[in-house]
Amino acid sequence: MSLEVRQILDMNAFDTSQDSETTNPLLQRRQQNFGPISVLFYREPLEMVRASGCWMEAIDGTRYLDFYNNVPSVGHCHPRVVAAISRQVATLNINSRYLNQITEEYLERLKSTMPPKLCNVAMACSGSEANDLALRVAKRFTGGSGFIVTQTAYHGNTQAVTEISPSAFKQGIPPDNVYLIKAPGKDAYGENIGQGMAKAVSRAIRTLKRRGHQLAALICDSIFSSDGVFADPPGFLQESVDLVHQAGGLYIADEVQPGFARTGEAFWGFGRHLLEPDLVTMGKPMGNGFPMAAMVAPTEAMAAFCKDVGYFNTFGGTPAAAAAGLAVLEVIEEEKLQENALKVGQHLKQGLLRLAKKDPRITAVRGAGLFIGIDLGRPEDSHAPDPMLASAVINGLRDRQVLIGAAGRYGHTLKVRPPLCLNKAEADFFLNALKTTLQNIPPAETRKRRRKAV
Amino acid sequence: MSLEVRQILDMNAFDTSQDSETTNPLLQRRQQNFGPISVLFYREPLEMVRASGCWMEAIDGTRYLDFYNNVPSVGHCHPRVVAAISRQVATLNINSRYLNQITEEYLERLKSTMPPKLCNVAMACSGSEANDLALRVAKRFTGGSGFIVTQTAYHGNTQAVTEISPSAFKQGIPPDNVYLIKAPGKDAYGENIGQGMAKAVSRAIRTLKRRGHQLAALICDSIFSSDGVFADPPGFLQESVDLVHQAGGLYIADEVQPGFARTGEAFWGFGRHLLEPDLVTMGKPMGNGFPMAAMVAPTEAMAAFCKDVGYFNTFGGTPAAAAAGLAVLEVIEEEKLQENALKVGQHLKQGLLRLAKKDPRITAVRGAGLFIGIDLGRPEDSHAPDPMLASAVINGLRDRQVLIGAAGRYGHTLKVRPPLCLNKAEADFFLNALKTTLQNIPPAETRKRRRKAV
Repeated sequence: MSLEVRQILDMNAFDTSQDSETTNPLLQRRQQNFGPISVLFYREPLEMVRASGCWMEAIDGTRYLDFYNNVPSVGHCHPRVVAAISRQVATLNINSRYLNQITEEYLERLKSTMPPKLCNVAMACSGSEANDLALRVAKRFTGGSGFIVTQTAYHGNTQAVTEISPSAFKQGIPPDNVYLIKAPGKDAYGENIGQGMAKAVSRAIRTLKRRGHQLAALICDSIFSSDGVFADPPGFLQESVDLVHQAGGLYIADEVQPGFARTGEAFWGFGRHLLEPDLVTMGKPMGNGFPMAAMVAPTEAMAAFCKDVGYFNTFGGTPAAAAAGLAVLEVIEEEKLQENALKVGQHLKQGLLRLAKKDPRITAVRGAGLFIGIDLGRPEDSHAPDPMLASAVINGLRDRQVLIGAAGRYGHTLKVRPPLCLNKAEADFFLNALKTTLQNIPPAETRKRRRKAV
Repeated sequence: MSLEVRQILDMNAFDTSQDSETTNPLLQRRQQNFGPISVLFYREPLEMVRASGCWMEAIDGTRYLDFYNNVPSVGHCHPRVVAAISRQVATLNINSRYLNQITEEYLERLKSTMPPKLCNVAMACSGSEANDLALRVAKRFTGGSGFIVTQTAYHGNTQAVTEISPSAFKQGIPPDNVYLIKAPGKDAYGENIGQGMAKAVSRAIRTLKRRGHQLAALICDSIFSSDGVFADPPGFLQESVDLVHQAGGLYIADEVQPGFARTGEAFWGFGRHLLEPDLVTMGKPMGNGFPMAAMVAPTEAMAAFCKDVGYFNTFGGTPAAAAAGLAVLEVIEEEKLQENALKVGQHLKQGLLRLAKKDPRITAVRGAGLFIGIDLGRPEDSHAPDPMLASAVINGLRDRQVLIGAAGRYGHTLKVRPPLCLNKAEADFFLNALKTTLQNIPPAETRKRRRKAV
């Protein structure tokens, strides 16, 4: 299963083995420095030189509209975040074993967006670190060891977190304390997604128990990003979370993807579903590119964990991280980016639905705010997923100055995730580029016939 | 064992349970925001407002000489590093899936300090992430699962890395694939430390094998920082590393502590021992406070690991991290900080040895360059470790404007680890403060009698 995804995602990646004869000197240096661990977008990777707002500029002067990267969430190189980081690293940047004003100011501002019981924050550097900690807190607090995740989930890159990230596996399968359920689509669970998913969760809990693993937690990002973006209907997770609680487990809301106003309808992904998580983790957009992340927990969970080992993170919660994070929260509020995500997201979705009416290869448009999934399929073949088409569209959009990627079990879902400051003109730029790209790709039947004719 | 350390280290920490009645509003806020996970220096924690060079300034205007923090290694808020970060975050700060010049320039500069076979770099955010990855690479490449670490080692805070960090345990013990050997002191291994440690490593390999764990790696920072600073004689690790290789295991050099010129005698801790590690990890001083870290490996090890899962780190190797890291390397070279660490380190060591001659409570002075351990003991009791004295000295030094911490199994070793730009006048400031502090603490016998008299 995960192999399928990898193959598709790799289609648009630079391939070390096949493309080693490159004449691009920077690419050669890159391959020598990173080695087999190198992951690059596109068969001919892009060299970037600067970025601003929703745009990145390549070495040849071409500007690209960034529909991929959710890290520079308030806009690439946002002057206010830049100023905050610059000021703070010039003044004081020490670890959290000393007190300082800005860290507490930031944490209070962050906590004000959370349910009151989520009152203790463990600051870290990456979403991976935050999730690694959350898994341990969940195990220690519940006494369980079983985890439920979706089939194509990605939660990070540490040893422990990789085990609950099936999309990271090129070969092998997750260990037996990890149970995979299908992503919450209609294909999988029918019209009543909440009920269908709850049944899957119930089966997962029983199976894990039979394997000797009492449930520790259900962990999911509520937009199901790498599964292919599944957002609706709001609230569908409640039944599943209730079952998790009945089984003594925790619901961990991984907000690395939907958090910080991206869905437009709420500041947090769980807020959109009116859920109150037991643990919350966050990362990527938190510092708009400054490496920072956090796990938020109730005091009793934190206290249980701290009995065994405690937690200290050298770079977590430094004044520099706090300054960056605080600037991000201020910009989201003052520039009304949540409202903008909702408004421009709706505009984008409507445009996509109009496109879908004209081009049946767009088989579904899903999502919330500025997090949208666009399924590409073969209308002539019961709308079967068409990852080849997704790959062609990704490359066609690149030629039309738009950066975008794919997700989902079959890699046939375009993942729309631009900075939250996207305006309608930029949304239209994408819609036009997508329209033209699709027009320039002949339907599958035509493609087939052409191949036969050759 | 680890409990002993924790108790001592906690002596100088703010204690949530005992000190919850604080009237310091910032401290109250801090305890509410961090909760049980909070770790603060001193019973009355310090609030810092700015820092520069080797000095930090508290809210009341008092300046403190920083002998503790090895993150701001080229000096707090070094203007060149600040400028590099500020410039880069204002220009371009994206993930490594796009090419950019500065990341490759940085990696080449970093690799030029390494043995040629260590040619692939995986960039991460923290030393914990780097070590987490190194453990997995070692397991995958060797097929083994056993790890050898020292008794009071600390390598980081992820789930996997905590298992090889015995000093992090408040209760419980590491799992049975982790074998603890004593730190390389004369107490443990006699005059021939290399031979003694090799015997311990040999026993570890056999025991792990008996438990079903083929050796994956010996991991140590070659200055044995949290064990209490053990540096000499240079080269003593070679026999142990040879045994590790014979058993099919790797030697992982954790350079988070000794790396980046701190020991004065070499740029890397392993270089001082004339060793060629199989994997190298680094973190803290790498970006002088910008969160960054790396694991460096030969191509074949990286390739083996990448067969299963690969590795991508969103914040690893961004242009901002590269700019910070490059500025650090340039400053070390241009300000001749390695030479300075050697020179001022020797001055400091000589001063400490002179103090030790006059005050027998200083029972040993060890280390290299600006990484020195000062044992405090009870001369009247066969020089037994005196953690109470260490605690009193740490607080006395605080009163005399010096920040310092303790390490070692018994917490009786003062850990000297100032920024590498320390000058002789600052070294003398510390020596005078230490002398006065010790003069103001009556010898243990006197203290005992006083307590009885009360």
